[in-house]
Amino acid sequence: MDPGEFDAAGWDERGVLPVEVREAVARAGWLGTDIPVDHGGKGHSQRELGELCAEIGAVCGSVRALLTVQGMVSAAIARWGTAAQRAAWLPALATGDRLAGFAATETGAGTELSAVDTRFERDGGVLTVTGGKRWITFGQEATVFLVLGKLEGKLTTVLVEADRAGVTTEPVRGQLGLRAAMIAHVGFDGVRVPAENLLAPPGFGLSQVVTTALDHGRFTVAWGCAGMAAACVDDAAGHTARRRQGGVPLAAHELVRSMLARMAVDATAARQLCVAAADARDAKEPGAIAATVMAKYAAARAAASASQDAVQLLGSAGCAPDSRAGRFFRDAKVMQIIEGSDQVSELHIADHLLRRYRTGESA
Amino acid sequence: MDPGEFDAAGWDERGVLPVEVREAVARAGWLGTDIPVDHGGKGHSQRELGELCAEIGAVCGSVRALLTVQGMVSAAIARWGTAAQRAAWLPALATGDRLAGFAATETGAGTELSAVDTRFERDGGVLTVTGGKRWITFGQEATVFLVLGKLEGKLTTVLVEADRAGVTTEPVRGQLGLRAAMIAHVGFDGVRVPAENLLAPPGFGLSQVVTTALDHGRFTVAWGCAGMAAACVDDAAGHTARRRQGGVPLAAHELVRSMLARMAVDATAARQLCVAAADARDAKEPGAIAATVMAKYAAARAAASASQDAVQLLGSAGCAPDSRAGRFFRDAKVMQIIEGSDQVSELHIADHLLRRYRTGESA
Amino acid sequence: MDPGEFDAAGWDERGVLPVEVREAVARAGWLGTDIPVDHGGKGHSQRELGELCAEIGAVCGSVRALLTVQGMVSAAIARWGTAAQRAAWLPALATGDRLAGFAATETGAGTELSAVDTRFERDGGVLTVTGGKRWITFGQEATVFLVLGKLEGKLTTVLVEADRAGVTTEPVRGQLGLRAAMIAHVGFDGVRVPAENLLAPPGFGLSQVVTTALDHGRFTVAWGCAGMAAACVDDAAGHTARRRQGGVPLAAHELVRSMLARMAVDATAARQLCVAAADARDAKEPGAIAATVMAKYAAARAAASASQDAVQLLGSAGCAPDSRAGRFFRDAKVMQIIEGSDQVSELHIADHLLRRYRTGESA
Amino acid sequence: MDPGEFDAAGWDERGVLPVEVREAVARAGWLGTDIPVDHGGKGHSQRELGELCAEIGAVCGSVRALLTVQGMVSAAIARWGTAAQRAAWLPALATGDRLAGFAATETGAGTELSAVDTRFERDGGVLTVTGGKRWITFGQEATVFLVLGKLEGKLTTVLVEADRAGVTTEPVRGQLGLRAAMIAHVGFDGVRVPAENLLAPPGFGLSQVVTTALDHGRFTVAWGCAGMAAACVDDAAGHTARRRQGGVPLAAHELVRSMLARMAVDATAARQLCVAAADARDAKEPGAIAATVMAKYAAARAAASASQDAVQLLGSAGCAPDSRAGRFFRDAKVMQIIEGSDQVSELHIADHLLRRYRTGESA
Repeated sequence: MDPGEFDAAGWDERGVLPVEVREAVARAGWLGTDIPVDHGGKGHSQRELGELCAEIGAVCGSVRALLTVQGMVSAAIARWGTAAQRAAWLPALATGDRLAGFAATETGAGTELSAVDTRFERDGGVLTVTGGKRWITFGQEATVFLVLGKLEGKLTTVLVEADRAGVTTEPVRGQLGLRAAMIAHVGFDGVRVPAENLLAPPGFGLSQVVTTALDHGRFTVAWGCAGMAAACVDDAAGHTARRRQGGVPLAAHELVRSMLARMAVDATAARQLCVAAADARDAKEPGAIAATVMAKYAAARAAASASQDAVQLLGSAGCAPDSRAGRFFRDAKVMQIIEGSDQVSELHIADHLLRRYRTGESA
Repeated sequence: MDPGEFDAAGWDERGVLPVEVREAVARAGWLGTDIPVDHGGKGHSQRELGELCAEIGAVCGSVRALLTVQGMVSAAIARWGTAAQRAAWLPALATGDRLAGFAATETGAGTELSAVDTRFERDGGVLTVTGGKRWITFGQEATVFLVLGKLEGKLTTVLVEADRAGVTTEPVRGQLGLRAAMIAHVGFDGVRVPAENLLAPPGFGLSQVVTTALDHGRFTVAWGCAGMAAACVDDAAGHTARRRQGGVPLAAHELVRSMLARMAVDATAARQLCVAAADARDAKEPGAIAATVMAKYAAARAAASASQDAVQLLGSAGCAPDSRAGRFFRDAKVMQIIEGSDQVSELHIADHLLRRYRTGESA
Repeated sequence: MDPGEFDAAGWDERGVLPVEVREAVARAGWLGTDIPVDHGGKGHSQRELGELCAEIGAVCGSVRALLTVQGMVSAAIARWGTAAQRAAWLPALATGDRLAGFAATETGAGTELSAVDTRFERDGGVLTVTGGKRWITFGQEATVFLVLGKLEGKLTTVLVEADRAGVTTEPVRGQLGLRAAMIAHVGFDGVRVPAENLLAPPGFGLSQVVTTALDHGRFTVAWGCAGMAAACVDDAAGHTARRRQGGVPLAAHELVRSMLARMAVDATAARQLCVAAADARDAKEPGAIAATVMAKYAAARAAASASQDAVQLLGSAGCAPDSRAGRFFRDAKVMQIIEGSDQVSELHIADHLLRRYRTGESA
Repeated sequence: MDPGEFDAAGWDERGVLPVEVREAVARAGWLGTDIPVDHGGKGHSQRELGELCAEIGAVCGSVRALLTVQGMVSAAIARWGTAAQRAAWLPALATGDRLAGFAATETGAGTELSAVDTRFERDGGVLTVTGGKRWITFGQEATVFLVLGKLEGKLTTVLVEADRAGVTTEPVRGQLGLRAAMIAHVGFDGVRVPAENLLAPPGFGLSQVVTTALDHGRFTVAWGCAGMAAACVDDAAGHTARRRQGGVPLAAHELVRSMLARMAVDATAARQLCVAAADARDAKEPGAIAATVMAKYAAARAAASASQDAVQLLGSAGCAPDSRAGRFFRDAKVMQIIEGSDQVSELHIADHLLRRYRTGESA
């Protein structure tokens, strides 16, 4: 399967990722890239996962988002699930037999997830789920949702199959970016699931389970953004090297070359931070989470500024419906908001940095 | 007529500006705002024209673009037309009986307009027009085009009625921004027009006629962008003042206030540069053209950065289909490209500045 | 007196503003520019005061700082002093017979002035002053200090003559910028002054008296910075227009022209914001204080970035000891810190903006 | 020898690097870090050289500059010298018995070195050198200069001992940064040297010898700047974590944390680009020169912006004479100018990028 053959512009225009594409992605094994082999995945390293996300991200943000949500839920189950839960869910997620949705965000709880209103109630062996989740990537197609809510006042996560009675989805159309990511608002109206769908003990929902999922999500988003930034450099350099005005290529202009250089430096730096994050993850270093936040922050910003500059250099071609740079201009903005906005990331990075000084240790 | 009642989001989504809207704009007299009273316009000052463009621009970039193209062609005719041409065209443009298109850009001639391939040939009292123009704002609806081409090798402008045989239009859909501006590619296939449609002598096409039009266009774009920037400040401040997370309004966060402050400073500075340009134009100062370029450059950048920050602060609401900030995020990018890209503007501004030093005069 | 003849580079290098210069500034009447005529000043408008500060600021930040501190203390006395205090102090300040120091900052109270430790104690008709003030501009030469401290726990301001027993000054040398501003740390060790030196009632010290002084200080700093930014544009444009490398002037390079353009736009925008603040002050508009904060913020940033770019364009000449751009590179950094740092200004600007939304009024 | 014990602030203030310091640096073997063992050096890898430059650069830019010039001349001799020249010069350079100066820049030839006016004339076995070089780092102390000039019109490099008759040095004092780097203007007035002092054939001077030297110089400057940036993060984080205002540490403010985060991301990214350049050099990859330019560009900018922000966060402490951040604020500006200015670097980076597109190969 070759991302280079994706019709990403068409999917974006129609706001749909065709089922066959999703199935082909599953057949390629991409959905289980870093799921352990004994759970049906490929057991690849974080570096390999990252490079795949960069390659896909350079072509289609929506397909990359498919890997991201599947990976987030899989990582949460792999880390916090019981042996039975891992055995029950991971193989199906690795092969794409099940498609996951990450259902945390609500109207009143965006960056402040502890404020979620979704309620879980336990009655013997049954959990009842009531609440509404917003902007769920691939929410239109997911067959299982990892839902964050409160059980007896404690932040808790529960797996809810999409075919349970009381689950409703409302597709979102026409949003700024990631238009083929099958986004939906998802409602849970007294949905009953067996108690074994509880993932990790009550109280572990946010600071353990969701944190693991978001960390994994940030990692794949970071690499996807690095791929977007590199693609924008590629499109801008190619266009300005070839396109001639007044008898010379656009790239003959110092101003054009200056913009290309800044784009290339930013894109390369973002990629190096992604590599550093991958290495820290593969080595299981304690700073791996912080390195991932930094990579995601830098890469999302590099993708945003590179896409702005690429559209600028491409001119009307960058504004045309089929322009990759124009699509990434819209997608990259979304990347600066999700999985920890730029602002939340800054505070996260600073907190990690300051820890050293509060305890008196020097840099 | 109240721009506040425009369904700008709907027009953007459908990619169409309804005919009734255009007719209402015409009835309001907006299309003749700065056309002299004795030619059927309102004879308003540049400052008044600017304020109107800011007000409209804060709501709908496509309606503002309608004023811009009509103003560009009207200004060119007012400045370079004969008395007969002024009498023949201006009243119809002032009232909107005629809708103008500004047809300069070609595939091979974007910022480098001297490279246009469109040809005029004179045969007695008839001019034949052959060529293809790209990305013509309101090209789908214009009833007369101001066409830049070459007559005997000299850059020349000719007015071509849209109902002449050989004029074809191909609507552009799905572009990044200004989606309701009825953009079209326009073809001229041996179109015959009377010689009196020649505007200004051969050789005056670019450095006189088109320069006048672009100067007028930059002025209304500048004010429109100032309006967009102010609207983004408004939406972001309103949202963050009202929306609460974790029990406090978003605006309780220093990081949010810092972003609002930067947006407000940029938007205010851009507006002040627009005011300075308007004053220079109304006083017919020699530096008026340069002041206009500076205003357009600063305002387009302010609109771009304010819209980026507004979407960021609005979060998912900023990415939703009906978001004004999200729409302006796309529209503002286009503003950095048209009527002199940011890069062309920088060179223009520097050239004006350096003139003083080359002649030895100090600042 | 012509600022163009100032030996600003020499004063900076030696870290001293010669007494004769200070006396000449006083003779020129500059110290009383906006002090009312009936109190011995020139009674000029805020706009005139601003233009003078820009003119001086373009040459020497230390002389501009002399006007700033004198103006801060004069404005505080004019606004909050009794008739007797105004009559006693303003004429001497207007003529320069007295030189003022603004003594608010302490080691533990930088931007958070409410935390000052300086104590006032009242015993009949005598006030005793004890505390230490830091980084007092012209503290080496001031003959009267406006001191912020606490009287019975209330923030209060008292005028303290420098020749009172117990006043000590410690000159500061070698600091980053404003090297000729005769900065000193000032100590008050049980200094006794008559109770009529109390300025405004106890409790009015910070939110009334110091606020008035800082508002005036920000205004003159803003214009001084606008002057610095314009001077940097001037030096950079002049240098690059004249200096040739490889047979062409430096300004023949697009990259150089791009930098010049950005500098010019920033400098012009900052100046327009200063003009708007001056107009708001002269019209006594309620938004004048906020407009002044915005002008100071934008102008300090414009001076900082213009000086960075000017040094860059001047190259080794910009790093040479006598370079105006190099001196302003150091001075402008200080301007971003004093009289409300950039960060404090951002919060101030946002608070003013948000007031409108909290009360429900739209922009 | 521990850089942590350097009195860098004192050396900067006095504008002198004490002889004992230079001798200690030599004794530590630092001057021969990457000179091969068989020529008396340590034979360390580029990565090790880089780490050393970062460590020193975090403390004193002038000592780092000493390693830079010595390294530049050594690298040029190692690459372009004959076996006899290598044997004659490298051991003395490795041990510091000889101190090198890199004498390329002239009044009329800054970034455009091909315009040098220095002349070499050959008369039998003697070369006569006439010309004037500007801003030569450690020019006050160098005992041998690598001089770029023209021999029979061809750009050529010659080694000139400082004790030859006709060599004069004029110390530079009071410049913006690198104040302890013993900078001098150096004159060559008919200086006679033996013909074996010719380094590489005539015509190889600029595009081979000087290119090798500058490449090495950029590499050590890059790492030095990465060290400066990290030091600024360290100082700013330490200060804001400890210093309390209004009862809370400065770092309790989101705006402070946001600045720290941006500084940390930039500094980390710059360091990663330096690591990538070192790895490319150690692996002798063809892209090593371009990777080095990118690292130098990014690191100099990171040092500049981190020092600006550190001074801002340190406030008055950052403006004090002994402030490391204040010193680096001045030093970092110089780093953006030397060894290829930011502007020259951008063009260099773009040219490297575009090569791929001109030959049709994709990224």
